[in-house]
Amino acid sequence: MGVWPARVSIREVGLRDGLQSIATIVPTTQKCEWIAGAHRAGMREIEVGSFVPPRLLPQLADTAAVLTFAKTLPGLFASVLIPNLKGAERALEGKADLMILPLSASQAHSLANLRKAPDDVVAEMAQIRAARDASGSRTLIEGGIGTAFGCTIQGAVDEAEVLRLMQALLDAGADRVSLADTVGYADPASVRRLFEKALRIAGNRFSGGHFHDTRGLALANTVAALELGVTRFDASLAGIGGCPHAPGASGNATTEDLAFMLEAMGCRTGIDLRALLALRQHVVGWIPAEPTHGALWRAGLPKTFAGIQ
Amino acid sequence: MGVWPARVSIREVGLRDGLQSIATIVPTTQKCEWIAGAHRAGMREIEVGSFVPPRLLPQLADTAAVLTFAKTLPGLFASVLIPNLKGAERALEGKADLMILPLSASQAHSLANLRKAPDDVVAEMAQIRAARDASGSRTLIEGGIGTAFGCTIQGAVDEAEVLRLMQALLDAGADRVSLADTVGYADPASVRRLFEKALRIAGNRFSGGHFHDTRGLALANTVAALELGVTRFDASLAGIGGCPHAPGASGNATTEDLAFMLEAMGCRTGIDLRALLALRQHVVGWIPAEPTHGALWRAGLPKTFAGIQ
Repeated sequence: MGVWPARVSIREVGLRDGLQSIATIVPTTQKCEWIAGAHRAGMREIEVGSFVPPRLLPQLADTAAVLTFAKTLPGLFASVLIPNLKGAERALEGKADLMILPLSASQAHSLANLRKAPDDVVAEMAQIRAARDASGSRTLIEGGIGTAFGCTIQGAVDEAEVLRLMQALLDAGADRVSLADTVGYADPASVRRLFEKALRIAGNRFSGGHFHDTRGLALANTVAALELGVTRFDASLAGIGGCPHAPGASGNATTEDLAFMLEAMGCRTGIDLRALLALRQHVVGWIPAEPTHGALWRAGLPKTFAGIQ
Repeated sequence: MGVWPARVSIREVGLRDGLQSIATIVPTTQKCEWIAGAHRAGMREIEVGSFVPPRLLPQLADTAAVLTFAKTLPGLFASVLIPNLKGAERALEGKADLMILPLSASQAHSLANLRKAPDDVVAEMAQIRAARDASGSRTLIEGGIGTAFGCTIQGAVDEAEVLRLMQALLDAGADRVSLADTVGYADPASVRRLFEKALRIAGNRFSGGHFHDTRGLALANTVAALELGVTRFDASLAGIGGCPHAPGASGNATTEDLAFMLEAMGCRTGIDLRALLALRQHVVGWIPAEPTHGALWRAGLPKTFAGIQ
């Protein structure tokens, strides 16, 4: 059996993947409060927004301001999503620690959501890498491969195609690559199968996993990835975000439940769970109309819990 | 890494662990409909009730009648919970395929819930075994060790004590033993640790795991147990039951989500998931006032799902 890693990073993506999927617009001051609270609770990686055109995602129109705030917090590694070269230029200007270029391995999903074929995104990665290098910036570039386990439009996504695109992104200059189960189609066996091959291709340039809990398997899938030595996982506080394809269903893995599982397992996250649960309650209060998810907040920590408290 | 088993049994416990925890009394005819529907969907192990005194659990007062019905279904392995020798006698009369004697490894929980010390339950196991043997019955006896991962009253439960009680139950004549995370304190690492030792003690007399989803880890814990070769798990349709210690929180693992995960992983359960989801909807309609759980019913099966449909 695999040995679980001693240290694991959770990257909070609720401010991007979460907020972009709900109607409520959270004001900049509250976003900054969220980031400061997560940082106080021990989180050190936060995706603070997305440099997409504000007319497409008004919820994230303040990403530059939020990034500026995030950069004031010591030791915080702030990332942003970028849809293209233009977004990358804004991320470089804002001195993001990391910019994530999403690529959808499903041709159909890519055309429907990004209006580009996957290989066009690979070409954009090369331009972004050139721009980053020309700027002398230290901003890292991650290629985030979505619909890696299938897609609600085209159904199956060929594993070989996912791996081909991963290699292409690395060849085009991505510093890191990650795999996302955008629609909740993964299971522990498919995670083990695909991640094992991905690790062989990307080695220590493999960044981590982004699991959605649409069908309740986000944590089970995490266990399968942990066994392969994967040490970074995306999650959203209170599971904020939902799934656009399944009304009422969960979207991202829930940060506090994931952190609880990891800490209980002895995989250190650096997160103070009591502080994180208090932050959850605070943030949930800002979006009363939105569905939230997760189990730990109801039940509380076990009496036997030995993590940071 | 561990190899996941090719075949896994899910034992439906919603009619016992589920219905005993909710206020609504489901009539006998509906219970029989539930059992028949689960059987039609391919389930072959169902815990149909409990032979506790009806004044304690009026919800399960019709267990004898429900068991009689269950015994008419071909290939169905019908089990009942028994609190003591008296209950065992009723299970033997009713020709249950299996009777499960619960033992709480937590001294405090045992005294509060069963009004007996764990070792008194071991002594009762010996009497039950003698009664079974004297009757010439083929009813099997399982010792179900609860609070195996900790307890809401006393907190930690010593692993050595759990294993000592397991050995004692086997010595006293239990045909099988199982481990239950009664209050949702387990995590994949503690499951691996305890189940590995339990399997060394009980070998093929180890029956399986009973995980609660109180803190969202039931499926993640199942993955850890699967890796050790465990092939039987308890679950409740729609997660019916809840957790008496955490209002609104989930209780048992949800049958349909567990079956989905297993089938997706290629661990055959024999369950037709579409039929099971239809049954879920039906059963949930009988208990409109009760909270239900699970993720699959909202999101539906993935387009790529390859199991029985």
